[in-house]
Amino acid sequence: MTDTICAISTAAGIGAIAVVRVSGDEAFSITDKIFRSFKGEKKLSNTPSHHFLYGQIVRTNGETVDEVVCSVFVAPHSFTGENSVEIACHGSIYIQQQILQLLIDNGCRMAKAGEYTQRAFANGKMDLSQAEAVADLIASNSEASHRLAIKQMKGGFSRELAKLRDSLLDFVSLIELELDFSEEEVEFADRLKLITLVNEIKSKISSLANSFKLGNAIKNGIPVAIVGETNVGKSTLLNWLLNEEKAIVSDVHGTTRDVIEDTMQLDGILFRFIDTAGIRETDDEVENLGIERTFRKMEEASIVLLTIDSSYVIDEIRSFLDRYLPRVTGKKVAVLFNKKDIITASKRKDLEALPLPEGTVRLFISAKQDQNKQDLFDTLNHFAQADLQEEKSVIVTNMRHYEALNHAFESINRVQEGLENNISGDLLSNDIRDCMHYLGEITGEITNDDVLKNVFSKFCIGK
Amino acid sequence: MTDTICAISTAAGIGAIAVVRVSGDEAFSITDKIFRSFKGEKKLSNTPSHHFLYGQIVRTNGETVDEVVCSVFVAPHSFTGENSVEIACHGSIYIQQQILQLLIDNGCRMAKAGEYTQRAFANGKMDLSQAEAVADLIASNSEASHRLAIKQMKGGFSRELAKLRDSLLDFVSLIELELDFSEEEVEFADRLKLITLVNEIKSKISSLANSFKLGNAIKNGIPVAIVGETNVGKSTLLNWLLNEEKAIVSDVHGTTRDVIEDTMQLDGILFRFIDTAGIRETDDEVENLGIERTFRKMEEASIVLLTIDSSYVIDEIRSFLDRYLPRVTGKKVAVLFNKKDIITASKRKDLEALPLPEGTVRLFISAKQDQNKQDLFDTLNHFAQADLQEEKSVIVTNMRHYEALNHAFESINRVQEGLENNISGDLLSNDIRDCMHYLGEITGEITNDDVLKNVFSKFCIGK
Repeated sequence: MTDTICAISTAAGIGAIAVVRVSGDEAFSITDKIFRSFKGEKKLSNTPSHHFLYGQIVRTNGETVDEVVCSVFVAPHSFTGENSVEIACHGSIYIQQQILQLLIDNGCRMAKAGEYTQRAFANGKMDLSQAEAVADLIASNSEASHRLAIKQMKGGFSRELAKLRDSLLDFVSLIELELDFSEEEVEFADRLKLITLVNEIKSKISSLANSFKLGNAIKNGIPVAIVGETNVGKSTLLNWLLNEEKAIVSDVHGTTRDVIEDTMQLDGILFRFIDTAGIRETDDEVENLGIERTFRKMEEASIVLLTIDSSYVIDEIRSFLDRYLPRVTGKKVAVLFNKKDIITASKRKDLEALPLPEGTVRLFISAKQDQNKQDLFDTLNHFAQADLQEEKSVIVTNMRHYEALNHAFESINRVQEGLENNISGDLLSNDIRDCMHYLGEITGEITNDDVLKNVFSKFCIGK
Repeated sequence: MTDTICAISTAAGIGAIAVVRVSGDEAFSITDKIFRSFKGEKKLSNTPSHHFLYGQIVRTNGETVDEVVCSVFVAPHSFTGENSVEIACHGSIYIQQQILQLLIDNGCRMAKAGEYTQRAFANGKMDLSQAEAVADLIASNSEASHRLAIKQMKGGFSRELAKLRDSLLDFVSLIELELDFSEEEVEFADRLKLITLVNEIKSKISSLANSFKLGNAIKNGIPVAIVGETNVGKSTLLNWLLNEEKAIVSDVHGTTRDVIEDTMQLDGILFRFIDTAGIRETDDEVENLGIERTFRKMEEASIVLLTIDSSYVIDEIRSFLDRYLPRVTGKKVAVLFNKKDIITASKRKDLEALPLPEGTVRLFISAKQDQNKQDLFDTLNHFAQADLQEEKSVIVTNMRHYEALNHAFESINRVQEGLENNISGDLLSNDIRDCMHYLGEITGEITNDDVLKNVFSKFCIGK
């Protein structure tokens, strides 16, 4: 027996229509109290699932609040798995609020954030990682992040985890069987086979955990650090990159907001630009702290744009590159020679002759004069594609999953060490159960209230 | 044969769900191209009206865009009167746009602003004044404006107009019958009865036209002018009125926006505060122009709050009241003695003794110290209730209707004069036909493309 909840499920604000959702045991009987169908006085309670009725929402005094369409979802054939009604009304804020109020007056309770999805999870309509994918899907703002969320919502990740848990279960069953026969010193579980299996599982878990870096980049934008000395035109560069592009995502919601300077989409891939403080060689301690911060931001980035004022004397440019290039090994790096429009042909030749490490892209641009932007975009895309080609069947995008995978990895690591050191079956079994526990946390087979509260509080109300 | 249109119908932005509407001859066949039902490969084209299917939107390459619910409305049982599908998808902006794009790729056209309602009008689902009520309903932000819009949407206004046109039609038929028998000089239409009828119609039209002032006040807020000398605390007063009230409507959309300073709801009634320039007695011509503007704004207002700094010398206050009170006769006036906290008991006695015209409310307040706000709210409410009690069965809220009624009034006036002057039947008949024409314009029985374009361009896209 659950109470019946209601909420506005469409975006806040005025639209042509809005949808109010009602879900719970009394969804039909409560809505029937405020709904009059236009034809034949039909009741929602008597309407078969997947039908809708046209009628009006009325107050107790008979006054019409709105003309609406009520869709009937009979349990378990609804999103939540409960009886549900979706009331499509006119999209005035006043009407939306009045309908909510009437539902509450007649016995509904206002839904908490994520409560619909939490009920869907509780009723076995989806596992926890699928529920989280619903939130990701709603927040997805690029083709790549959308594709990941759809895949996760369809249960791809859950199936991978189920496979891992199944292998572990087979394994631990054999070990625990040995324990039952411990006096006889039998080994049902072939230790060599077990070692192979544990290696496989360990590598799988590690590969999933490693995919988080990419998953996070796809979800929150591939981090691009713009690094350069003061006054080389870094801000102009950023504006140039962002302003002229139509697909600017200027307002990204979510917990990562404080670290996002600005994001931009290029061909369905989201880039997150990390602007760094202008840096220059100095003995000033405070300023050197700033430079350390810049280095740390460079560390976070997967792409680094080293920005150079081409009009500087060549020795200064060489010294800048000497200091910075060694700090970005392993990253995708483009050296941007900005202000290309104001240098001589011979200066350009000198700059072209500067040695750069293999794989580093050399680009001559002018942010101010809007020159060679397409080359820069192509370079960004090329760098990103190299990342995306690593895209495997399953990519972890969620920090909670990532942490659980890390715990699972530690446990399976202990199992591996235990097998090597021939530790007792009961200790082995404990570590395997630990690993299964952490994997189960991801899909919600193992849950606790804190985890659930934390997961669903990140949802919006109405979902 | 109409083309098939599509649009996002829910509010812009991210929500738990969003609704994309498809309407037109090919609504089912186009949506079927991108929709796969989860069970039994059902097609929307074969689904009976008022059912919905659960399934997914897929790209040509089979990739899932989203899991959705598609509601089927078979013509004429839809809002537009055409075949329609409503696709309820997850509320990510990316998904909404992708679904629109797929619909357009498969033969839909993006709907123009108000095109759904225009089609509903064209298909006889509603008349023009009802269509306009749909827009008003969506924009309604108070109980009173919502009630007016619902009434108009249900056709109350249309029925009033139909009654008027019917009486005029009976009348003009008799007159025109006389014209057919003109050689015989018969009078089928009893002139005395006609004069009575015309008087009745004239008074009805005039009463409808007069209701516009109230209708407009309900829709856009009852105009309240805040008038006072410079530095008596008018801005503090406005902030005090608005900031502390929860039901602030700070952002009102629509054409009236430029004249709205700020609106606020009290007990379901919307007030529109018109801040005026601070005024003081002066010989400066420019400043006197400003004062004239203040007088004009006072003219527009139905409630005037004369705001006074209680600490001013009594003669100055008396002189202010002497100048302003005569300008606001006929309006609802409250004299607000502000800064009540800083005056002596004897000063207060003097202010209480100042003579005010009957019906004028005297209030002692302190905006800064938040004293006596409830009294001020009660006064505003009391003033507004006096207006609202005049609320008749039908109130005109629309400028277009108001103008048509004025034209109709001029025509019926000419009819009345004609009858008095015994003008010929054919001239009489012309004027009656004119009057009927203007009334017909309101409901859209008489239309032209310009009027329609103008009406529907004020709608949002998706409605």
